Amino acid sequence: MDVHSTSTTLGNLALFVGGRVVGSPQTLLNQALPLQDAEAGCLTLVDASQSPERIEQSPASAVLVGQELSGCTKPQLVADDPHAAFAAIILHLRGTRRVDAKVTGISAAAHIDASAVIGAGTAIAAGSSVGAGCEIGLRCTLHPGVHVMADCRIGDDCELFPGVVLYPDTRLGNRVIVHSHATLGAAGFGYKTRDGRHHLSAQLGWVEVGDDVEIGASTAIDRGTYGPTKIGHGSKLDNLVQIAHNCQIGAHNLICAHVGIAGSCSTGDYVVMAGQAGMADHIHLGNRVVVGGQAGVMQNVPDGQTVFGSPAIDSKRKMQEVAVAGRLPQMRRDLKELHKQLQDLREQLAALNSIDQQRERHVA
Amino acid sequence: MDVHSTSTTLGNLALFVGGRVVGSPQTLLNQALPLQDAEAGCLTLVDASQSPERIEQSPASAVLVGQELSGCTKPQLVADDPHAAFAAIILHLRGTRRVDAKVTGISAAAHIDASAVIGAGTAIAAGSSVGAGCEIGLRCTLHPGVHVMADCRIGDDCELFPGVVLYPDTRLGNRVIVHSHATLGAAGFGYKTRDGRHHLSAQLGWVEVGDDVEIGASTAIDRGTYGPTKIGHGSKLDNLVQIAHNCQIGAHNLICAHVGIAGSCSTGDYVVMAGQAGMADHIHLGNRVVVGGQAGVMQNVPDGQTVFGSPAIDSKRKMQEVAVAGRLPQMRRDLKELHKQLQDLREQLAALNSIDQQRERHVA
Amino acid sequence: MDVHSTSTTLGNLALFVGGRVVGSPQTLLNQALPLQDAEAGCLTLVDASQSPERIEQSPASAVLVGQELSGCTKPQLVADDPHAAFAAIILHLRGTRRVDAKVTGISAAAHIDASAVIGAGTAIAAGSSVGAGCEIGLRCTLHPGVHVMADCRIGDDCELFPGVVLYPDTRLGNRVIVHSHATLGAAGFGYKTRDGRHHLSAQLGWVEVGDDVEIGASTAIDRGTYGPTKIGHGSKLDNLVQIAHNCQIGAHNLICAHVGIAGSCSTGDYVVMAGQAGMADHIHLGNRVVVGGQAGVMQNVPDGQTVFGSPAIDSKRKMQEVAVAGRLPQMRRDLKELHKQLQDLREQLAALNSIDQQRERHVA
Repeated sequence: MDVHSTSTTLGNLALFVGGRVVGSPQTLLNQALPLQDAEAGCLTLVDASQSPERIEQSPASAVLVGQELSGCTKPQLVADDPHAAFAAIILHLRGTRRVDAKVTGISAAAHIDASAVIGAGTAIAAGSSVGAGCEIGLRCTLHPGVHVMADCRIGDDCELFPGVVLYPDTRLGNRVIVHSHATLGAAGFGYKTRDGRHHLSAQLGWVEVGDDVEIGASTAIDRGTYGPTKIGHGSKLDNLVQIAHNCQIGAHNLICAHVGIAGSCSTGDYVVMAGQAGMADHIHLGNRVVVGGQAGVMQNVPDGQTVFGSPAIDSKRKMQEVAVAGRLPQMRRDLKELHKQLQDLREQLAALNSIDQQRERHVA
Repeated sequence: MDVHSTSTTLGNLALFVGGRVVGSPQTLLNQALPLQDAEAGCLTLVDASQSPERIEQSPASAVLVGQELSGCTKPQLVADDPHAAFAAIILHLRGTRRVDAKVTGISAAAHIDASAVIGAGTAIAAGSSVGAGCEIGLRCTLHPGVHVMADCRIGDDCELFPGVVLYPDTRLGNRVIVHSHATLGAAGFGYKTRDGRHHLSAQLGWVEVGDDVEIGASTAIDRGTYGPTKIGHGSKLDNLVQIAHNCQIGAHNLICAHVGIAGSCSTGDYVVMAGQAGMADHIHLGNRVVVGGQAGVMQNVPDGQTVFGSPAIDSKRKMQEVAVAGRLPQMRRDLKELHKQLQDLREQLAALNSIDQQRERHVA
Repeated sequence: MDVHSTSTTLGNLALFVGGRVVGSPQTLLNQALPLQDAEAGCLTLVDASQSPERIEQSPASAVLVGQELSGCTKPQLVADDPHAAFAAIILHLRGTRRVDAKVTGISAAAHIDASAVIGAGTAIAAGSSVGAGCEIGLRCTLHPGVHVMADCRIGDDCELFPGVVLYPDTRLGNRVIVHSHATLGAAGFGYKTRDGRHHLSAQLGWVEVGDDVEIGASTAIDRGTYGPTKIGHGSKLDNLVQIAHNCQIGAHNLICAHVGIAGSCSTGDYVVMAGQAGMADHIHLGNRVVVGGQAGVMQNVPDGQTVFGSPAIDSKRKMQEVAVAGRLPQMRRDLKELHKQLQDLREQLAALNSIDQQRERHVA
């Protein structure tokens, strides 16, 4: 399958990653793939979550494990950190591939304004552009088709994948990774309606991204109205995320795909927002808040709370609601039945009353 | 409206598509447009869903139908497959337009690594780039601004629209269409948190796309951790879809816009996911499963089931819940009324009891 | 913080915007920033929503207000329209920045087909392409990496940001702004399934955008099947929006981020759709309809109605449902309690009846 891969023995791989062999160290291996993709000649990574039958039926020639599997007929490589070992082995076996081929130097086919300042070791590929007044730090990589508009400032060791666009005045910290087609600094979605027409409000702010931030493919972060839209240090944004104007995202947030955060929201540190969650404008999420998938947050959430649902509420209450909602048709039938029984009782009581009154009259 | 269009008669169009004319074959026509856009000189396509009044009021000069419309005063062209006939006529009347102008040859302004192998008949437009070690098949089209990074393999007869990005090692089958700004192979959203910082986990896998797949604009498909994220043969992905790392999408799926599929999910064949639906990670959808719009799938779904809601459940049960939910305010009032009636009965009963006891005492 | 900014006095700024100073007009200022970002030397904009404490604690050197703040110890600049004044001052203080550096002329590194007609004053940056048969009006700006495919027609005074793609035959009115990575005119998501394979249906239409429309980053608008997908005059689309084939969006709509509109929908004028809302196919929204965030519209909505929820219903009814849903667990407990009380009553009644019958027998 992979023409570039090299071949080696299980014993050599054990030496390479400092592991231990159970079975024949002479087993020949030329690839390392997950169990579902493994072929003959493959080392595969397995753990307790995979059934022994599935492992035995796999054509893989050997398995990599954290703890020796008893009853396994395939040769085993036992390593303390099997995930790290597997990653190292994959890279080792791919020895001759060029997937990590780096862009180097500044291409003559890149379009760089004369006033831009580019740090040492920074590579800019053909077809990219850097506007007037930009300052780019050391050892950055701008892949092909990256467009950095005027007056942007990029720190050191950043990587911008093909098709990234930074609008004017965008500021990135150090070690920031931006994936393809992310758009930082476009105009916010703010209009004033006069005489039946929507007029774009001021778009004089910018986007400011902290150190060690990663921004996913096709994610959009709009510039602030007058000041910065901010992404805090160490926060990670997945693909197709929308961060509207003036948002202040805290540090070390994890914001999953398709999350949409409306204007002027803020989040504390270590917030997690699951996929397709949304926030109405001007909302604050406290530290370590967790927002469930597809939740719609319409009010502030205090530190540490987990919310779920649309509108989002405390996740435990929401899960109770969901559970009871599943019994709603039954509850409705119960309610009708209660009505009937009550009517029945009322009639019985009326009958009793009537007998009683007759008796009274009789007695009288 | 369209300066390039030519003019002909209804009779000629009938000959062209093998249809039959009702009314004057001399009717002059220079355009073919849908009913809502039709002007004088237009042939328009109509069917039973459009009201006779709307057809009569249209300025269109003639109508194309599958079956003769009785009582219609406009000339008619009756064709067995009216949609196919309409498409053929549109193309015929647009004779001199250049919308189908093909990219041909390999532009001198494309940036192609010397180690890349490009098949015969493949066209690469200006401003596109092809990285080291790439292999591209026969008769492909890379429109302007397409970036194919190192070690990608593309089959025959593929078309990549402007702005497509393939990260290193992406593999496309034959006849794959990728629309603008799709990103295939970016890093998955997987982190290990150590000492309060999120560290990107291994991103050593790739994206593997089967034959006859179509991928929409700005759709993102992340690379696998160690092996492939797969899109099966014949599956179609709409715009702005997110497919996370390690997903295994089956054959002939239809995945609509804004669908988000979290990491390590899998689907069977002929699955349909409607717009804005989401799947939590590690979920499996069986063959021919249908997921409703905005549904949030949080558990495996067996073959053939239709699910709806967030969290998603069987669609019939969900529709019952929705129907009953609409009566919730009334149910709440009913419940209060029952409370009151019960209290009333309890009081009547207490009164009866008391009378009874008095009588007992009296009797005694 | 900002090396390009100039320095002036509060008195000069008051003259510049026609405002009035409260406190020292000699106060030196070199920047204008929102309250949360303000530093010493800053003018900041405040209003009644900010607490007096927060204003006092800010290091800002002066405040800009619409009405004089009593009890504020900072120098004040009072202006009739403080937002307009703030915007003007920000631009004034940024005097030497290049963020508004305009693209001028047609770059020799742009790829423009010889048959394209480009109006006077239109600028096309390096790395952009314009296909055969295109007509572009006066004073447009095509930033770097914009790809306009064959036969497109663009009006006057349009601005296309880096990475915009117009598929063949796309038509833009005047003063249209398109943000990065928007894709106009890609194939619709329409397939016919024959013999187990999905075949793309006709994609012969185009996209037609009215005057004064703004289209957000990574928004996708698919071409119509036979005719146009239309965006009406003055409508504004946020980032990451999906407009499917054949949609007819009215005038002056506001469509927020992540909204997804399925095929053949139409909207009246002044419709507002909040973030992540969706519409099933062939739905019509009347004039001035408001669709709440994350709502899923599955039926036509008459003029002026506000809808919410998924499936979307009248927002007042939905909010009642949501309120009652919060009491569902309590309602379920109430229902059980009613059952119990009813059983209790039934037993009491049975006891009464039994006593009564015994007495009857006794009497007899």
